[in-house]
Amino acid sequence: MRVVIIGTGNVATILGKRFLAAEHEIVQVCGRNALHAEDLADTLSAVSTTDLKHIDQSADLYVLAVSDNAVAAVAAELQLNNKLIVHTAGAVSKDVLSAASKNYGILYPLQSLRSELNELPEIPFLVDGNTGDDLALITEFANTISHQVEQAGDEQRLKLHVAAVMVSNFTNHLYTLAKAYCLHEKVDFNMLLPLITAVAERLHDYEPAAIQTGPAVRNDEATIQKHLALLQDHPSLKVMYTMFTESIKKMYGARSAG
Amino acid sequence: MRVVIIGTGNVATILGKRFLAAEHEIVQVCGRNALHAEDLADTLSAVSTTDLKHIDQSADLYVLAVSDNAVAAVAAELQLNNKLIVHTAGAVSKDVLSAASKNYGILYPLQSLRSELNELPEIPFLVDGNTGDDLALITEFANTISHQVEQAGDEQRLKLHVAAVMVSNFTNHLYTLAKAYCLHEKVDFNMLLPLITAVAERLHDYEPAAIQTGPAVRNDEATIQKHLALLQDHPSLKVMYTMFTESIKKMYGARSAG
Repeated sequence: MRVVIIGTGNVATILGKRFLAAEHEIVQVCGRNALHAEDLADTLSAVSTTDLKHIDQSADLYVLAVSDNAVAAVAAELQLNNKLIVHTAGAVSKDVLSAASKNYGILYPLQSLRSELNELPEIPFLVDGNTGDDLALITEFANTISHQVEQAGDEQRLKLHVAAVMVSNFTNHLYTLAKAYCLHEKVDFNMLLPLITAVAERLHDYEPAAIQTGPAVRNDEATIQKHLALLQDHPSLKVMYTMFTESIKKMYGARSAG
Repeated sequence: MRVVIIGTGNVATILGKRFLAAEHEIVQVCGRNALHAEDLADTLSAVSTTDLKHIDQSADLYVLAVSDNAVAAVAAELQLNNKLIVHTAGAVSKDVLSAASKNYGILYPLQSLRSELNELPEIPFLVDGNTGDDLALITEFANTISHQVEQAGDEQRLKLHVAAVMVSNFTNHLYTLAKAYCLHEKVDFNMLLPLITAVAERLHDYEPAAIQTGPAVRNDEATIQKHLALLQDHPSLKVMYTMFTESIKKMYGARSAG
């Protein structure tokens, strides 16, 4: 397909590369910042513009990959003569695109995308369309760039979005806090990497509830108290440790008492 | 080396297999439950006993792999004629072994070990010894079963243990809560697996703080409010969501305001 990308951030960059790798043609990149738009256009063998009024009207698909809180405002400025437009946001209704065209939908990458990453990760997509034809076209396009494509309405997409925040943003924050703690306490965080990888990989084969380990699920109060004593100088970590320990005890109380 | 294993649980099982794979000889398995002891002894081509008084006195190394809160009591019952003994617990001082022998130390696997796992994960070890000679022997042994062996005293080991609890037990609990949420809301948790893997793998190349994404670090209040509304019927998740969001905002406040 011939694609116009609106946006120059992490999602626009990673998806643009993925489109190109699947032999789609990027005809134009549109971004507010001229330098960023030129840079990404160069990367994608496209031309650039900073003006929404100068958007190429000849493309097959318009991909609006701007920050979540800008999607509605940018869509309202676009006039696409009923060309097919999608946005890439997890928590924004597809209907904000109705201002731009009567043919619209969703191409939402269920991944944490950072343009500085060297390797492109596997990206599952949630797709949606305003009409059956739009949904079919968007699904067909998504299948050219991913092996995991599922249809999901606004509410399902938002539900997976909040779950994604929990399993990626929150876990990454736990890694960040643990790394800062290790640095402060002069122990080697890198020794934890095989453990971190093992826990994540195990989800492919096991129910996480069935393989929970640690002092909380064992009701090992002696170890919990030793840990809390160690966290005396790390009040934020101590609060988090306590909350997780209570939550785990609550979930497995019957198992521990048995 | 000729090894006696005391214990028949997850750690005893996985380490026993690892010892055998490195061509050490398991001469005996000792466990309270006769059936469990026989089973593990069969797996490791060893003999079994249920009586601490019948422990083979001819081995080179005694590995005490019982639950953390039983280590001291079992050690107090052992008489090993100053043979080398190690325990495998993260949060128990090595000195509880002084009751059993004057030659003792630590062989602590920094991994989440579950005997039902088919694949043996990479296991970094923290080692310690009561004397320089004991530490040298234990380090040499650990190097035969792992590429990552570091010396660490009781306090360093406990510090890495609490960090390990955060990055493995707590993240696994997040996965558990997210999976229960997806099941309840009828959306497909498996769509999140590539995301989970990507976040964990990224730690090999990036500082977690540098690649934090999500609504909290962006100060995207509109998305946060949508998420909280969706968690209305999941009070435990809502508490956790709020705590992480506050913790992330606190850490990156300057970045968001900039």
